Amino acid sequence: MKSTKIEFVIQHIHEQIKARSLLPGSRLPSVRALAGLLHLSVSTIVEAYERLASQGIIEAKTGSGFFVAGPLAPLSISEIHPKIDRSIDPLWISRQALEAKQGVLKPGCGWLPDDWMPHENIRKAIRKVSKAPASILTDYSTPLGLAPLRELLSRRILSKGIEARPNQILLTDSGTQAIDLICRYFLKPNDVVLVDDPCYFNFHALLKVHQIQIIGVPYTPTGPDLEAFSQAIKKHNPRLYITNSGIHNPTGAVLTAPTAYQVLKLVEQSNLIVVEDDIFADLELHSAPRLAALDGLSRVIHIGSFSKTLSGSVRTGYIATQSEWIEDLADIKIATCFGGNNLSSEILYAALTDGNYRKYLEELKVRLAKAMDTTVKQLEKLGIKTWVKPSAGIFLWCELPEYFDSARIAQNCLEHGVILAPGNAFSQSQNFKNFIRFNVAQSIEPKIFEVLSHAIQHEIEQQRL
Amino acid sequence: MKSTKIEFVIQHIHEQIKARSLLPGSRLPSVRALAGLLHLSVSTIVEAYERLASQGIIEAKTGSGFFVAGPLAPLSISEIHPKIDRSIDPLWISRQALEAKQGVLKPGCGWLPDDWMPHENIRKAIRKVSKAPASILTDYSTPLGLAPLRELLSRRILSKGIEARPNQILLTDSGTQAIDLICRYFLKPNDVVLVDDPCYFNFHALLKVHQIQIIGVPYTPTGPDLEAFSQAIKKHNPRLYITNSGIHNPTGAVLTAPTAYQVLKLVEQSNLIVVEDDIFADLELHSAPRLAALDGLSRVIHIGSFSKTLSGSVRTGYIATQSEWIEDLADIKIATCFGGNNLSSEILYAALTDGNYRKYLEELKVRLAKAMDTTVKQLEKLGIKTWVKPSAGIFLWCELPEYFDSARIAQNCLEHGVILAPGNAFSQSQNFKNFIRFNVAQSIEPKIFEVLSHAIQHEIEQQRL
Repeated sequence: MKSTKIEFVIQHIHEQIKARSLLPGSRLPSVRALAGLLHLSVSTIVEAYERLASQGIIEAKTGSGFFVAGPLAPLSISEIHPKIDRSIDPLWISRQALEAKQGVLKPGCGWLPDDWMPHENIRKAIRKVSKAPASILTDYSTPLGLAPLRELLSRRILSKGIEARPNQILLTDSGTQAIDLICRYFLKPNDVVLVDDPCYFNFHALLKVHQIQIIGVPYTPTGPDLEAFSQAIKKHNPRLYITNSGIHNPTGAVLTAPTAYQVLKLVEQSNLIVVEDDIFADLELHSAPRLAALDGLSRVIHIGSFSKTLSGSVRTGYIATQSEWIEDLADIKIATCFGGNNLSSEILYAALTDGNYRKYLEELKVRLAKAMDTTVKQLEKLGIKTWVKPSAGIFLWCELPEYFDSARIAQNCLEHGVILAPGNAFSQSQNFKNFIRFNVAQSIEPKIFEVLSHAIQHEIEQQRL
Repeated sequence: MKSTKIEFVIQHIHEQIKARSLLPGSRLPSVRALAGLLHLSVSTIVEAYERLASQGIIEAKTGSGFFVAGPLAPLSISEIHPKIDRSIDPLWISRQALEAKQGVLKPGCGWLPDDWMPHENIRKAIRKVSKAPASILTDYSTPLGLAPLRELLSRRILSKGIEARPNQILLTDSGTQAIDLICRYFLKPNDVVLVDDPCYFNFHALLKVHQIQIIGVPYTPTGPDLEAFSQAIKKHNPRLYITNSGIHNPTGAVLTAPTAYQVLKLVEQSNLIVVEDDIFADLELHSAPRLAALDGLSRVIHIGSFSKTLSGSVRTGYIATQSEWIEDLADIKIATCFGGNNLSSEILYAALTDGNYRKYLEELKVRLAKAMDTTVKQLEKLGIKTWVKPSAGIFLWCELPEYFDSARIAQNCLEHGVILAPGNAFSQSQNFKNFIRFNVAQSIEPKIFEVLSHAIQHEIEQQRL
């Protein structure tokens, strides 16, 4: 009740400033005077003034009262809208999807809709952490990060056959930051890094920041093309190979055991270190082989996060590797971002150790399987085929007739409020001009396929001209 | 005899490479210059260089001298367990302080004790956010970060005279990450960066990750030494100057208006961009001039965070600069860590807009002023003087008699459960062997001064031997 009155006073002052009844530098009414004027208690006015002062809208001057702080910086109306004319580079999809306003449809984005995420789980975890000891709320994290979470991760990855003690695990602020730290540790400008072709577009963006030569190895439905992989090693002497294990992004394909074995044999004969990004681990129905498990964390570094299944807002990722490298990576982490976000680690730990998380995952997998079926059917109606039928996950990698330009289709759809993920954004070779990645959980709205159908029609007409 | 001297030179070069003072590809001092510097004969240096070349550590290029061969030295030597014997490099204090067990005293650390921090404020903010709409709990942040927080920051920095619209502000995960992103945007390996000498030790660690040549400019009680600053610009053509505004770390000195004006005049005639780290802004009693305010965010980039006064666990920092640079920095942020931590931004926003934060700051400043008085007196009893009497903040920069080795004193104190911050950890020139930085809020326990007194006694005895 009191809170509403305070809000009322704040609103009142805001309006006076906006209407220039209160000019910058002018003194506000005394607490007592305003209380009398508005028929409110002195304490309500005091609290409202305190809040306005803490927001920098008014200033207290000792002994003389409160004053309007100054011209409000103009609130930009153009809060950086999606840039329709921005060229389609590796950051195109990220920025479109991250900047999308309410109502824009995002079959091109890489995450679940917010109403698919386990809010109650997170709310409960946040409430729990709000009662934690003081030190958890204000202290910097230890260099490796929250010990109980590292112990939990150690047990979790053991279920995929990966043996890492807690002191072989470094918490990071995200899966992306995990790869970034590894790049900082192993690479120097102009080094060569292998990625899958196609691969998660942000690998390209990240490697470009590091000024790295990127070589794409064609990805097949069972993993990287071994002949091309072997040739790339011989020809380029690459330092890292960055790939997804479990469910591959964008193709939805899964690395098979024989391919994994052959990949490791080739890696062993080279100078190569493998970064295995396992960010979709919790969406698997059946556990695929992990390179880090076969190799015993000798040449393979395992990374992951929970952005896809718990929250993209509470950010925590991790690196599992040899303890010697972990120590050096922790030094780089301190140097470049000081501590990690300990509060987020605590929230994540509380959410993961709540029994509901497992139940939520079971339901999520069923929901995703249904969405995948529906999306496949919708796409088939438009004559669009999937490159492989994924066994799980959120992505469909779709092939359009060869003469189609999916970047142009994406631009066209964006003008109608639908953000797509055109194939070449995922490709170093730019060989996927006629591909599109669909996120099945973000492809529920029929409007998406209407807009897409029109864009395809438009594309066909373009071709005829 | 000569052989020992040659070994000494070899050792000297090894250490420079190890400390990343000499980077791969960089030229070694000429034979004649090094001979002069080390007071050794030219032939000794020639022989040492020849041996290093034969070991492949350096390379001779005909007609142009000797060059470091590579690869890059690891960032530092790390051990897995308590690191009492770890050499004192820029990461020494960070890791000691971050890893300290309960009961260890930390006058050397850079933050407030947890019972000085505003827990109830943070708890309230966390509870508030636990009730926020679902999207806040699970969605990735927008590229620039939470809009209301950027609006608040825009108003807050306006009170220091810095005009930045909300779309000129990029949220980051920490003040350190803010500087890291700026380094990634403006620097390439072997570029030259100016820092204050002494300066916050993590600037050195961060710049070493970027393989930057660091040049220290002596810091005076009114700001950087202008003559040295001017000379450094002429001689090294540096790209960035990274400094603290408001309260300087570690000295507690404050940049004065005339010095600020002269610094900007020199900057304008150069290729230099200034990064002004304002992380202690909320501890000021009187507002010092800000370079970013004078310069209108043209050549000066303003950064800050709330790790020191709100929480080191809920991490959010920011960059305020030209909107064109903000857009590019946002791209780098997405590429290297995808989204920011939106949940932390929401918690920070709730905590900052709660009227209690301002009250807490008022009390904190009084408490710090008292702690500063007490610490000064305790140090005086041990014959330790402060280099300048700080007007506010948490640090005292203390000078011991010239023959004291504060690194040795720090090692000694660490063995007795007290973590100090020895002077040379803050210095590129290594000219502060006999300095120590004290955090007055962490110097309440009398045991600190007992341990310190013994260590000093031990040091005096060492000198007599």
